[in-house]
Amino acid sequence: MLEGLLTLDRAASVPLPDQIYRGVRDAVRAGRLSAGAVLPSSRRLAETLAVSRNTVTAAYELLAAEGVIEVRRGAAPRVCGHDRDPVAAAALSDATPAVGLSARGKDLSRLPWAAPDRARAKRLEPGTPAIDVFPRDEWARALRRAARRPDRREVLYAQTSGLDRLRAALAVYLASERGVRAEPSQILVTPSTQASLFLLATCLADPGETVWLEDPGYLGARAAFLGAGLTIVPMPVDDQGADPSAMAGAPAPRLVYVTPSHQYPTGVTMPLARRLAVLEQARHAGGLVVEDDYDSEFLFEGRPVAALQGLSGGGEAVYLGTFAKSLLPGLRVAYMVVPAQLAPDLAAAQRAAGLYANVATQGALAEFLETGRYRAHVKRIRTVYRGRGLAMAEALRRAVGNLGQVADPTGGVQLTLRFDASRDDVAIAEALQARGFGVAALSTYALATDAPASPVSGLVIGFADATETDVAEIARAVAAALAVAE
Amino acid sequence: MLEGLLTLDRAASVPLPDQIYRGVRDAVRAGRLSAGAVLPSSRRLAETLAVSRNTVTAAYELLAAEGVIEVRRGAAPRVCGHDRDPVAAAALSDATPAVGLSARGKDLSRLPWAAPDRARAKRLEPGTPAIDVFPRDEWARALRRAARRPDRREVLYAQTSGLDRLRAALAVYLASERGVRAEPSQILVTPSTQASLFLLATCLADPGETVWLEDPGYLGARAAFLGAGLTIVPMPVDDQGADPSAMAGAPAPRLVYVTPSHQYPTGVTMPLARRLAVLEQARHAGGLVVEDDYDSEFLFEGRPVAALQGLSGGGEAVYLGTFAKSLLPGLRVAYMVVPAQLAPDLAAAQRAAGLYANVATQGALAEFLETGRYRAHVKRIRTVYRGRGLAMAEALRRAVGNLGQVADPTGGVQLTLRFDASRDDVAIAEALQARGFGVAALSTYALATDAPASPVSGLVIGFADATETDVAEIARAVAAALAVAE
Repeated sequence: MLEGLLTLDRAASVPLPDQIYRGVRDAVRAGRLSAGAVLPSSRRLAETLAVSRNTVTAAYELLAAEGVIEVRRGAAPRVCGHDRDPVAAAALSDATPAVGLSARGKDLSRLPWAAPDRARAKRLEPGTPAIDVFPRDEWARALRRAARRPDRREVLYAQTSGLDRLRAALAVYLASERGVRAEPSQILVTPSTQASLFLLATCLADPGETVWLEDPGYLGARAAFLGAGLTIVPMPVDDQGADPSAMAGAPAPRLVYVTPSHQYPTGVTMPLARRLAVLEQARHAGGLVVEDDYDSEFLFEGRPVAALQGLSGGGEAVYLGTFAKSLLPGLRVAYMVVPAQLAPDLAAAQRAAGLYANVATQGALAEFLETGRYRAHVKRIRTVYRGRGLAMAEALRRAVGNLGQVADPTGGVQLTLRFDASRDDVAIAEALQARGFGVAALSTYALATDAPASPVSGLVIGFADATETDVAEIARAVAAALAVAE
Repeated sequence: MLEGLLTLDRAASVPLPDQIYRGVRDAVRAGRLSAGAVLPSSRRLAETLAVSRNTVTAAYELLAAEGVIEVRRGAAPRVCGHDRDPVAAAALSDATPAVGLSARGKDLSRLPWAAPDRARAKRLEPGTPAIDVFPRDEWARALRRAARRPDRREVLYAQTSGLDRLRAALAVYLASERGVRAEPSQILVTPSTQASLFLLATCLADPGETVWLEDPGYLGARAAFLGAGLTIVPMPVDDQGADPSAMAGAPAPRLVYVTPSHQYPTGVTMPLARRLAVLEQARHAGGLVVEDDYDSEFLFEGRPVAALQGLSGGGEAVYLGTFAKSLLPGLRVAYMVVPAQLAPDLAAAQRAAGLYANVATQGALAEFLETGRYRAHVKRIRTVYRGRGLAMAEALRRAVGNLGQVADPTGGVQLTLRFDASRDDVAIAEALQARGFGVAALSTYALATDAPASPVSGLVIGFADATETDVAEIARAVAAALAVAE
């Protein structure tokens, strides 16, 4: 009887014991084998199916473990009794999910920022570092060293806010390079700046509360804040960066998001007076400044401006940093420096939400920082990025002539090409995206879409990873797209 | 004038240019240097301070970049005008945070589960794998290979729900080992099971909605669900695992959390009939089953029971897995298999929340799975874990005599030692924790603390990482703690 219910497929990737197991299980569930039915012995079934006896035994053991059959020494295997309707079981195979998204799940998942076409890497995408300059051999060796000696204080469930030694190394590095003042315990290591932003938005603001966001501003921040249910109030950007004087009558914020080192996407650096004004306005309005310092290490001329975090007393600003632009986004290691009084609670929340970074990678990063190799690497790529940025700007200027304006980049990994405001930059960007370029339309970074008082048009183009060929091709492609759009 | 305001400390770790920079900046902020004040030339200041001219130039460049001073060729450096009150700036150095925790931030951060004493790794903590059996050299080589050839499709901002090749390898592995039915696109790779749980709780339920949770049950799940603001309804556990028949009149759940392979913390395996009953009850009540299969790979006898996910049609269950028990928690790589229709939205939410796993680690895991090394490793540690589990059970039995009952573990990485219900297991656990053991009191896993109808008392003890010395010492220590408590 059983044999007729089983058909083995020797070419299938499913192992033979699994095929027998599934055949019996499905027959029981479909009611083709009833409670009490006697199965052949493993020896006999093996002979009938022309498989080894071990194959059948493995299947029977699994069926017995699941309570589908009963196997007793000296007795024939039997199908167990099941006090439920086998027809109901068959109806279970309906693939419609039992539940749909929650309201907040919709907030978090249905953002234009997270559109499917961002799921594939494209050339010259803003935010992309130079992959060819990544110190692969040096890094791979450091990583191997870190992975070969797993330390039980680090590789289990402790230090979920970052390895002690990485936090200590970062405290020293950030103090000297960025003027950040922090104890290691104020530094939380996360899997991404996106995770840092989401954790802050969740832990420091409730749904419907307000965040001030630069306009135009970073789409990832907008996604994290909208995803966490916050209300975004645009903060205008001028040639000194975010302008707090425009926020006098605005709703009081919980958070004030700024990119003072190199405003995203305009590239403007915020001078000291403006920094102090931002701190003062945030304090006056009762909000905490979130300072995203994503590419401060790549200022091409002079030294980067001191971080707002260090200019404040440490209570008014959170500092966000990442290894994504200096090494690789794929490390999935970022960090934030939070006020001392908030650090224990934020670390506990991070633990509960599971926002942990890979331990061996943290170990290799600590080694890079401690030995000075990280600093040397940053110095090296700063030169490389500068060269690529100037080459890109020059090529674009020559290609577009008076149809666009591009300033030499002063730092970072992307530059901005501006068009006359009447140009449809979205159409131009889409034409370029269709050709494999990950460039973004400048107007998509604008928040106040209902206020076309100061419309912008242009492209944001990553240059850090650009080869000479990339530069030549994007310049030609932009010129062609502009000619078509003329 | 300036010289009097500057005091250099040559022994300090702060570089000299930074000391000069800070001295000037603070003098301006405090009003000791006014707008328009003339500074000495870099040459003269270098002579006065007995430092190199480069040192002063570096400081001046930074001050100029920040807009604190103005440096023009052929003119003396001058302090810029600042249209703000310098006294207000001084008051900024108050370390009280500008904002406190949000209501949901308190939910997420103030969980007993995340108490500070869990921040340090202890011996024999439940959930700990064997660190000494971790294949460190083989793994370190695989990791090095993965890190040395960064693939731009993987190391940038694409594939944030997991590398395509890891998801493909997992789909094959889970189908053959666990009867999980899934396309690779249904598999989301996350930094931890904790992150998987938090993402599900957030995206599939709104605050105040209900989750059914095994009682006693896994504290991490409780933390994620409470942290996401859900209401927990206990689901009693008997000798077949979670009992859905007891939930007839319970509030309808959005999620039903179960650990069918090896119930946490009791270690019970759920038979097939009960699995089908759980699916049916969840379907009837309109909830999605969340199946945490954290240690299914370590069933000591026979083969693991097929996953609920595969028994359902794929729409009624989410399957959670992890590499934390088979390799190391420090990899910070876990995964979940979600219904096909929910996969795109959950992946988008994961992207917005920044829950990304390290790329090189994922590459090494894919290699381990593809080459069969992972399967071989699991087989090896299954034997090791079994030996350690049986040794631990035997030693405990001998040490505690009739003061406790311990069954041979049937799988997993921890076992349960039960005391008479009148015993204060929290006091016993605390005594052992004070001696460096990370054991947990069984009663702390109970949810229905207000219903002492079936009180439990005992200890949950990790054995997978236990040396012979550990086994001997914990047995002696438990016996001593019981004697004291007598």
